[in-house]
Amino acid sequence: MSNIKVELAKTLKAKPTDESKLGFGEIFTDHMFLMDYTEGKGWHDARIVPYGPIPMDPSAMCLHYGQTVFEGMKAYRTPDNRILMFRPEENFKRLNQSNDRLQIPAVDEKLLLEGLEKLVEIEKDWVPHTDGASLYIRPFIIATEPKLGVKPSANYLYIVVLSPSGAYYKSGLNPVKIYIETQYTRAVKGGTGAAKTGGNYASSLKAQEIAHEQGYSQVLWTDGVEHKYIEEVGAMNVFFVLGDEIVTPELVGSILPGITRKSSIELLRSWGYKVSERRLAVAELVEAYQAGKVKEAFGTGTAAVISPIGELKVGDLVMTFNDNKIGEISQKLYDNLTGIQYGKLPDTHNWMDEVCKG
Amino acid sequence: MSNIKVELAKTLKAKPTDESKLGFGEIFTDHMFLMDYTEGKGWHDARIVPYGPIPMDPSAMCLHYGQTVFEGMKAYRTPDNRILMFRPEENFKRLNQSNDRLQIPAVDEKLLLEGLEKLVEIEKDWVPHTDGASLYIRPFIIATEPKLGVKPSANYLYIVVLSPSGAYYKSGLNPVKIYIETQYTRAVKGGTGAAKTGGNYASSLKAQEIAHEQGYSQVLWTDGVEHKYIEEVGAMNVFFVLGDEIVTPELVGSILPGITRKSSIELLRSWGYKVSERRLAVAELVEAYQAGKVKEAFGTGTAAVISPIGELKVGDLVMTFNDNKIGEISQKLYDNLTGIQYGKLPDTHNWMDEVCKG
Repeated sequence: MSNIKVELAKTLKAKPTDESKLGFGEIFTDHMFLMDYTEGKGWHDARIVPYGPIPMDPSAMCLHYGQTVFEGMKAYRTPDNRILMFRPEENFKRLNQSNDRLQIPAVDEKLLLEGLEKLVEIEKDWVPHTDGASLYIRPFIIATEPKLGVKPSANYLYIVVLSPSGAYYKSGLNPVKIYIETQYTRAVKGGTGAAKTGGNYASSLKAQEIAHEQGYSQVLWTDGVEHKYIEEVGAMNVFFVLGDEIVTPELVGSILPGITRKSSIELLRSWGYKVSERRLAVAELVEAYQAGKVKEAFGTGTAAVISPIGELKVGDLVMTFNDNKIGEISQKLYDNLTGIQYGKLPDTHNWMDEVCKG
Repeated sequence: MSNIKVELAKTLKAKPTDESKLGFGEIFTDHMFLMDYTEGKGWHDARIVPYGPIPMDPSAMCLHYGQTVFEGMKAYRTPDNRILMFRPEENFKRLNQSNDRLQIPAVDEKLLLEGLEKLVEIEKDWVPHTDGASLYIRPFIIATEPKLGVKPSANYLYIVVLSPSGAYYKSGLNPVKIYIETQYTRAVKGGTGAAKTGGNYASSLKAQEIAHEQGYSQVLWTDGVEHKYIEEVGAMNVFFVLGDEIVTPELVGSILPGITRKSSIELLRSWGYKVSERRLAVAELVEAYQAGKVKEAFGTGTAAVISPIGELKVGDLVMTFNDNKIGEISQKLYDNLTGIQYGKLPDTHNWMDEVCKG
């Protein structure tokens, strides 16, 4: 075991009384995990401390040059009161992939997992008891060197905060309305699209707002080169059921390699479905739709797990999938993923990490 | 005059004793300017306070989703001891353009200029006395709402910090070695390339490091779509003298609209040169080079003003411009721009803003 210092909060906050009213990422627990990086010394001083403001130099690089990465995952409470996390080692592996793209020094993934388990155990009473609610986990790294030259920072801070959260989409599994974005670009080959870094999200805000104003909940991003190929939807990966083939865009470097995406592919294949990770042109989708072949469409992501797409607008054409109802495969994936996550179904793929008794 | 509160520092820091050793953006003055934005209330509480750490909630959106913008400009001391700023209204105009792309509420440009003048006047003793050195000015805005949903923040902080700085490039006006980047992408049409936001700079770090390892000081970015057209160099705009035409890439949405770029075009045209803002393919540049037509190449930016390019590598071809020496036009532009900025030449274009006596 590593040397993780723990300073417990002297007073604890009141926990939410009505878990059905929980939002997403709005309230935070009593403690957080911190670890420093200093050039020449490496990562050091792993510690759990009371949640609170961090003194930030106004010239800290993260405020100027976007040298930040993050992860998102969840802890769940099972009916027999155990606290589980879903594939956390995958998140830490991806964090280091993001670090590599952003020139941030790699972190010891085992230490991160150990530190996270320790933090979640301390905060176990914050893990919601309500179905669909969970403890959202946000590990992130920020560049802290107070310098205005454009170069990788000499100092970093790794932080984990925890937030008890309800379902990401308030309408639950109701199918969402999406449109295909062809003006704004989220990411392009050679850019940072495959990394979980702030710039990708900052870049998406404007298209998102325009979508909201027009009554759509998200946009479906197309490739930044020709705006012809489907990439991902809002902050999720996307799947289409085309006849007997389930298609999701291949990871070409501008698409986030989602862990729910990966898990969905593994589950679908284990059930005998044909899943193709390949280029999918908007034109091919429209053609398949007009031939009556598009049976379902859905997004996958940590926050929503599975988000069925009921309506997809491209130019003047509004495509409706499965009569605007949840499709059979979407429902089956959702039931199985959440069943495994909440410990209600057997963990057939060895995905769950038991943190402690609840 | 607006109501800007001033709280002066009780003790002042020691000023740099040897201005020839000043770096870039490494030391900061005694005070900073702050202003808050609260949804429903707008921008409020403009104030000048002692420079120091800001208490930052670890869930503040700027640390997660990159919703940040910034500007960069300089204050200069003239031989007759006046403090001048170079076209600050252009910077605040661009700040609001960046705000628009990043979904940050617009700021009153007149108030920003008034606040900056007040801050620079308080800090006037920090404006270096040495030729080539100046007081670097960094206005920036960060999203501060402590929430993890991906959406525009409800709260922001506008900050200005000041840093006495030497010449950006230690080698001064010595021509730099650059190579043409065709693997990594800085920005693409529909993205945030025309905005001054952290994500563009985060995205550039990796290519920059690879360039440094290979002995190059910067990369020349090509378009994110085909990697065929020239966009900008490192953190500067770029110009090529092709025969009797001076070419700089047109502002297609993925290129930062530089104020030194704009001023250079205005000066060059006022001198009777033909300046074209147009698409410039790498292939055209190589062809012109092989025909002996590329007379000079240089970058323009606030930090370096003019940075001559001596060597440009594309694939296996190394192009050398003007025998690796500063070209006539580069030198003339540098002399005139810095002459106007330091108040040594007549301000023929009405660019300079006199803040106070030094």
